Amino acid sequence: MQKTAITAMLSGFLLMPATSVQADDPTVSILRVGSQPSVPADAKYFTGVARVDSRFQRSEPAKISGGLVTFEPGARTAWHSHPLGQTLIVTSGVGWVQSWGGAVQEFREGDVVWIPPEVKHWHGATATTGMSHFAVSESLNGKSVVWMDKVSDEQYLAK
Amino acid sequence: MQKTAITAMLSGFLLMPATSVQADDPTVSILRVGSQPSVPADAKYFTGVARVDSRFQRSEPAKISGGLVTFEPGARTAWHSHPLGQTLIVTSGVGWVQSWGGAVQEFREGDVVWIPPEVKHWHGATATTGMSHFAVSESLNGKSVVWMDKVSDEQYLAK
Repeated sequence: MQKTAITAMLSGFLLMPATSVQADDPTVSILRVGSQPSVPADAKYFTGVARVDSRFQRSEPAKISGGLVTFEPGARTAWHSHPLGQTLIVTSGVGWVQSWGGAVQEFREGDVVWIPPEVKHWHGATATTGMSHFAVSESLNGKSVVWMDKVSDEQYLAK
Repeated sequence: MQKTAITAMLSGFLLMPATSVQADDPTVSILRVGSQPSVPADAKYFTGVARVDSRFQRSEPAKISGGLVTFEPGARTAWHSHPLGQTLIVTSGVGWVQSWGGAVQEFREGDVVWIPPEVKHWHGATATTGMSHFAVSESLNGKSVVWMDKVSDEQYLAK
Protein backbone atom coordinates (compact mmCIF):
# COMPACT_ATOMS: atom_id res chain seq x y z
CA MET A 1 0.00 0.00 0.00
CA GLN A 2 1.22 3.49 -0.77
CA LYS A 3 1.99 5.84 2.07
CA THR A 4 -0.60 8.27 0.72
CA ALA A 5 -3.25 5.56 0.96
CA ILE A 6 -2.24 4.77 4.52
CA THR A 7 -2.36 8.43 5.43
CA ALA A 8 -5.80 8.76 3.85
CA MET A 9 -7.11 5.79 5.81
CA LEU A 10 -5.67 7.08 9.04
CA SER A 11 -6.98 10.52 8.36
CA GLY A 12 -10.35 8.90 8.08
CA PHE A 13 -9.87 6.99 11.29
CA LEU A 14 -8.49 9.33 13.88
CA LEU A 15 -6.39 11.89 12.06
CA MET A 16 -3.12 10.63 13.35
CA PRO A 17 0.23 10.99 11.65
CA ALA A 18 1.15 7.88 9.65
CA THR A 19 4.71 8.11 10.91
CA SER A 20 3.67 7.23 14.45
CA VAL A 21 1.62 4.18 13.54
CA GLN A 22 2.94 0.65 14.05
CA ALA A 23 5.01 -0.33 11.02
CA ASP A 24 3.50 -3.11 8.99
CA ASP A 25 6.29 -5.61 9.40
CA PRO A 26 6.35 -8.73 7.18
CA THR A 27 7.30 -10.76 10.25
CA VAL A 28 5.82 -10.90 13.74
CA SER A 29 6.17 -7.44 15.27
CA ILE A 30 5.47 -6.03 18.71
CA LEU A 31 4.26 -2.49 19.29
CA ARG A 32 5.74 -1.86 22.75
CA VAL A 33 3.67 0.16 25.17
CA GLY A 34 5.34 3.54 25.56
CA SER A 35 7.13 3.40 22.20
CA GLN A 36 4.54 5.64 20.48
CA PRO A 37 3.83 9.11 21.82
CA SER A 38 0.19 9.72 22.80
CA VAL A 39 -1.69 11.80 20.24
CA PRO A 40 -4.61 14.11 21.06
CA ALA A 41 -7.76 13.04 19.22
CA ASP A 42 -8.59 15.52 16.46
CA ALA A 43 -10.71 18.40 17.79
CA LYS A 44 -12.56 18.43 14.49
CA TYR A 45 -14.17 15.09 15.29
CA PHE A 46 -14.09 14.95 19.09
CA THR A 47 -15.61 17.06 21.85
CA GLY A 48 -13.61 17.39 25.06
CA VAL A 49 -10.28 15.84 25.92
CA ALA A 50 -9.50 12.54 24.22
CA ARG A 51 -6.18 10.88 23.47
CA VAL A 52 -5.08 8.05 21.18
CA ASP A 53 -2.37 5.46 21.92
CA SER A 54 -1.15 2.20 20.41
CA ARG A 55 -2.30 3.00 16.91
CA PHE A 56 -1.96 0.26 14.31
CA GLN A 57 -2.87 -0.06 10.64
CA ARG A 58 -2.46 -3.25 8.64
CA SER A 59 -1.71 -3.40 4.92
CA GLU A 60 -3.69 -5.24 2.26
CA PRO A 61 -4.89 -7.94 2.16
CA ALA A 62 -5.64 -7.24 5.85
CA LYS A 63 -8.05 -4.36 6.34
CA ILE A 64 -8.10 -3.66 10.06
CA SER A 65 -6.89 -0.62 11.91
CA GLY A 66 -7.27 0.41 15.49
CA GLY A 67 -6.04 2.20 18.55
CA LEU A 68 -6.63 2.78 22.23
CA VAL A 69 -8.77 5.86 22.79
CA THR A 70 -9.03 7.46 26.22
CA PHE A 71 -11.85 9.93 26.89
CA GLU A 72 -11.87 12.27 29.88
CA PRO A 73 -15.30 12.75 31.52
CA GLY A 74 -17.61 14.58 29.10
CA ALA A 75 -15.50 13.73 26.04
CA ARG A 76 -17.07 11.98 23.06
CA THR A 77 -16.72 11.44 19.34
CA ALA A 78 -18.80 13.32 16.77
CA TRP A 79 -21.64 11.44 15.10
CA HIS A 80 -20.10 9.00 12.60
CA SER A 81 -20.49 5.65 10.89
CA HIS A 82 -18.23 2.83 9.73
CA PRO A 83 -18.74 1.10 6.37
CA LEU A 84 -17.88 -2.30 7.91
CA GLY A 85 -18.72 -1.57 11.55
CA GLN A 86 -16.53 -1.18 14.60
CA THR A 87 -15.75 -3.21 17.71
CA LEU A 88 -14.96 -1.38 20.96
CA ILE A 89 -13.05 -3.40 23.55
CA VAL A 90 -13.55 -1.46 26.77
CA THR A 91 -10.36 -1.54 28.84
CA SER A 92 -11.29 0.87 31.64
CA GLY A 93 -13.97 3.13 33.07
CA VAL A 94 -17.56 3.76 32.06
CA GLY A 95 -18.87 5.08 28.75
CA TRP A 96 -21.91 5.89 26.71
CA VAL A 97 -22.86 4.93 23.17
CA GLN A 98 -25.90 5.98 21.15
CA SER A 99 -27.13 5.23 17.67
CA TRP A 100 -29.21 7.84 15.83
CA GLY A 101 -32.77 7.65 17.18
CA GLY A 102 -31.83 5.11 19.85
CA ALA A 103 -31.33 5.38 23.60
CA VAL A 104 -27.99 6.23 25.20
CA GLN A 105 -26.52 2.94 26.47
CA GLU A 106 -23.94 2.70 29.23
CA PHE A 107 -21.01 0.28 29.08
CA ARG A 108 -18.14 -0.61 31.39
CA GLU A 109 -14.65 -2.07 31.55
CA GLY A 110 -14.72 -5.62 30.20
CA ASP A 111 -17.67 -5.03 27.89
CA VAL A 112 -17.38 -5.34 24.11
CA VAL A 113 -19.48 -2.95 22.02
CA TRP A 114 -20.48 -3.67 18.42
CA ILE A 115 -21.48 -0.89 16.04
CA PRO A 116 -22.79 -2.49 12.83
CA PRO A 117 -21.94 -1.22 9.32
CA GLU A 118 -23.47 2.14 8.32
CA VAL A 119 -25.04 2.83 11.72
CA LYS A 120 -24.79 6.53 12.64
CA HIS A 121 -23.66 6.77 16.27
CA TRP A 122 -21.31 8.32 18.81
CA HIS A 123 -19.40 6.98 21.80
CA GLY A 124 -17.42 8.45 24.64
CA ALA A 125 -16.99 8.74 28.40
CA THR A 126 -19.91 9.45 30.70
CA ALA A 127 -20.31 12.98 32.00
CA THR A 128 -18.60 12.06 35.25
CA THR A 129 -16.25 9.14 34.56
CA GLY A 130 -13.43 8.63 32.06
CA MET A 131 -13.27 5.65 29.74
CA SER A 132 -10.72 3.87 27.52
CA HIS A 133 -11.45 1.46 24.70
CA PHE A 134 -9.56 -0.23 21.93
CA ALA A 135 -11.43 0.60 18.73
CA VAL A 136 -10.98 -1.86 15.86
CA SER A 137 -12.54 -1.43 12.43
CA GLU A 138 -12.15 -2.78 8.92
CA SER A 139 -11.83 -0.58 5.86
CA LEU A 140 -13.93 -0.77 2.72
CA ASN A 141 -12.34 0.72 -0.39
CA GLY A 142 -9.73 2.32 1.85
CA LYS A 143 -12.24 4.00 4.13
CA SER A 144 -13.13 3.00 7.69
CA VAL A 145 -15.17 5.96 8.97
CA VAL A 146 -17.53 8.72 7.80
CA TRP A 147 -17.57 11.72 10.13
CA MET A 148 -20.67 13.88 10.67
CA ASP A 149 -21.79 16.63 13.08
CA LYS A 150 -20.58 17.04 16.63
CA VAL A 151 -22.75 15.69 19.46
CA SER A 152 -24.38 18.64 21.22
CA ASP A 153 -24.46 18.89 25.01
CA GLU A 154 -28.22 18.39 24.79
CA GLN A 155 -27.84 15.17 22.84
CA TYR A 156 -25.00 14.01 25.07
CA LEU A 157 -26.84 14.62 28.31
CA ALA A 158 -30.19 13.20 27.16
CA LYS A 159 -29.74 9.95 29.08
CA MET B 1 -24.68 -15.73 7.06
CA GLN B 2 -25.88 -19.23 7.83
CA LYS B 3 -25.37 -20.66 11.28
CA THR B 4 -23.35 -23.49 9.77
CA ALA B 5 -20.94 -20.99 8.27
CA ILE B 6 -20.63 -19.18 11.58
CA THR B 7 -19.99 -22.45 13.37
CA ALA B 8 -17.36 -23.40 10.82
CA MET B 9 -15.58 -20.07 11.26
CA LEU B 10 -15.63 -20.37 15.01
CA SER B 11 -14.48 -23.95 14.84
CA GLY B 12 -11.54 -22.64 12.89
CA PHE B 13 -10.92 -19.90 15.41
CA LEU B 14 -11.11 -21.36 18.86
CA LEU B 15 -13.60 -24.23 18.72
CA MET B 16 -16.20 -22.49 20.78
CA PRO B 17 -19.93 -23.12 20.59
CA ALA B 18 -21.67 -20.64 18.31
CA THR B 19 -24.49 -20.32 20.80
CA SER B 20 -22.29 -18.54 23.33
CA VAL B 21 -20.90 -15.96 20.91
CA GLN B 22 -22.12 -12.35 20.89
CA ALA B 23 -25.21 -12.12 18.70
CA ASP B 24 -24.73 -10.10 15.58
CA ASP B 25 -27.29 -7.42 16.30
CA PRO B 26 -28.33 -5.04 13.49
CA THR B 27 -28.20 -2.18 16.01
CA VAL B 28 -25.54 -1.15 18.51
CA SER B 29 -25.09 -4.04 20.95
CA ILE B 30 -23.10 -4.49 24.12
CA LEU B 31 -21.59 -7.80 25.17
CA ARG B 32 -21.63 -7.38 28.95
CA VAL B 33 -18.69 -8.75 30.88
CA GLY B 34 -19.93 -11.81 32.78
CA SER B 35 -22.83 -12.49 30.42
CA GLN B 36 -20.97 -15.26 28.55
CA PRO B 37 -19.61 -18.25 30.43
CA SER B 38 -15.85 -18.76 30.12
CA VAL B 39 -14.93 -21.56 27.73
CA PRO B 40 -11.80 -23.70 28.01
CA ALA B 41 -9.61 -23.38 24.91
CA ASP B 42 -9.76 -26.56 22.84
CA ALA B 43 -7.13 -29.06 24.02
CA LYS B 44 -6.63 -30.11 20.40
CA TYR B 45 -5.03 -26.76 19.60
CA PHE B 46 -3.70 -25.58 22.95
CA THR B 47 -1.15 -26.93 25.41
CA GLY B 48 -1.79 -26.26 29.11
CA VAL B 49 -4.63 -24.34 30.67
CA ALA B 50 -6.17 -21.59 28.55
CA ARG B 51 -9.62 -20.03 28.66
CA VAL B 52 -11.65 -17.89 26.26
CA ASP B 53 -14.02 -15.06 27.22
CA SER B 54 -15.90 -12.28 25.42
CA ARG B 55 -16.10 -14.09 22.11
CA PHE B 56 -17.53 -12.16 19.19
CA GLN B 57 -18.08 -12.91 15.51
CA ARG B 58 -19.37 -10.37 13.01
CA SER B 59 -21.46 -11.21 9.96
CA GLU B 60 -20.73 -10.28 6.35
CA PRO B 61 -19.77 -7.79 5.07
CA ALA B 62 -17.68 -7.48 8.26
CA LYS B 63 -15.11 -10.23 8.60
CA ILE B 64 -13.63 -9.89 12.05
CA SER B 65 -13.90 -12.22 14.98
CA GLY B 66 -12.16 -12.26 18.30
CA GLY B 67 -12.06 -13.05 21.96
CA LEU B 68 -10.12 -12.63 25.16
CA VAL B 69 -7.75 -15.55 25.70
CA THR B 70 -6.15 -16.14 29.10
CA PHE B 71 -3.14 -18.47 29.32
CA GLU B 72 -1.87 -19.91 32.60
CA PRO B 73 1.92 -20.12 32.91
CA GLY B 74 3.28 -22.66 30.41
CA ALA B 75 0.13 -22.58 28.24
CA ARG B 76 0.39 -21.80 24.53
CA THR B 77 -1.36 -22.28 21.22
CA ALA B 78 -0.31 -24.91 18.69
CA TRP B 79 1.60 -23.72 15.65
CA HIS B 80 -0.86 -22.01 13.32
CA SER B 81 -1.32 -19.26 10.74
CA HIS B 82 -4.01 -16.75 9.77
CA PRO B 83 -4.89 -16.05 6.12
CA LEU B 84 -5.29 -12.32 6.91
CA GLY B 85 -3.12 -12.08 10.01
CA GLN B 86 -3.99 -11.48 13.64
CA THR B 87 -3.65 -8.62 16.12
CA LEU B 88 -3.09 -9.43 19.78
CA ILE B 89 -4.01 -6.68 22.25
CA VAL B 90 -2.24 -7.68 25.45
CA THR B 91 -4.41 -6.86 28.45
CA SER B 92 -2.40 -8.47 31.25
CA GLY B 93 0.73 -10.38 32.13
CA VAL B 94 3.73 -11.46 30.09
CA GLY B 95 3.78 -13.69 27.02
CA TRP B 96 5.89 -15.20 24.31
CA VAL B 97 5.40 -15.31 20.54
CA GLN B 98 7.51 -17.03 17.92
CA SER B 99 7.33 -17.36 14.16
CA TRP B 100 8.71 -20.48 12.48
CA GLY B 101 12.49 -20.13 12.29
CA GLY B 102 12.46 -16.89 14.32
CA ALA B 103 13.44 -16.09 17.89
CA VAL B 104 10.97 -16.28 20.78
CA GLN B 105 9.92 -12.70 21.55
CA GLU B 106 8.53 -11.56 24.89
CA PHE B 107 5.63 -9.12 25.19
CA ARG B 108 3.79 -7.47 28.08
CA GLU B 109 0.51 -5.86 29.11
CA GLY B 110 -0.11 -2.83 26.92
CA ASP B 111 1.81 -4.18 23.92
CA VAL B 112 0.10 -4.90 20.59
CA VAL B 113 1.41 -7.88 18.61
CA TRP B 114 0.96 -8.25 14.86
CA ILE B 115 1.16 -11.62 13.14
CA PRO B 116 1.08 -11.05 9.36
CA PRO B 117 -0.93 -13.19 6.94
CA GLU B 118 0.27 -16.76 6.40
CA VAL B 119 3.05 -16.57 9.01
CA LYS B 120 3.37 -19.86 10.93
CA HIS B 121 3.68 -19.03 14.63
CA TRP B 122 2.54 -19.70 18.19
CA HIS B 123 1.79 -17.47 21.19
CA GLY B 124 1.08 -17.98 24.84
CA ALA B 125 2.11 -17.22 28.41
CA THR B 126 5.71 -17.42 29.57
CA ALA B 127 6.76 -20.49 31.53
CA THR B 128 6.35 -18.61 34.80
CA THR B 129 3.74 -15.87 34.26
CA GLY B 130 0.16 -15.91 32.97
CA MET B 131 -1.01 -13.68 30.13
CA SER B 132 -4.29 -12.44 28.63
CA HIS B 133 -4.80 -10.94 25.19
CA PHE B 134 -7.67 -9.98 22.98
CA ALA B 135 -7.08 -11.77 19.67
CA VAL B 136 -8.70 -10.18 16.62
CA SER B 137 -8.52 -11.61 13.12
CA GLU B 138 -10.25 -11.27 9.78
CA SER B 139 -11.57 -14.21 7.81
CA LEU B 140 -10.80 -15.01 4.18
CA ASN B 141 -13.36 -17.20 2.42
CA GLY B 142 -14.85 -17.98 5.81
CA LYS B 143 -11.58 -19.10 7.37
CA SER B 144 -9.48 -17.21 9.91
CA VAL B 145 -6.95 -19.80 11.09
CA VAL B 146 -5.06 -22.90 9.95
CA TRP B 147 -3.99 -25.15 12.81
CA MET B 148 -0.79 -27.23 12.74
CA ASP B 149 1.28 -29.27 15.21
CA LYS B 150 1.52 -28.61 18.92
CA VAL B 151 4.50 -26.66 20.26
CA SER B 152 6.82 -29.11 22.02
CA ASP B 153 8.33 -28.30 25.43
CA GLU B 154 11.72 -28.12 23.72
CA GLN B 155 10.46 -25.53 21.23
CA TYR B 156 8.58 -23.63 23.92
CA LEU B 157 11.55 -23.43 26.30
CA ALA B 158 14.14 -22.59 23.62
CA LYS B 159 14.27 -18.92 24.59
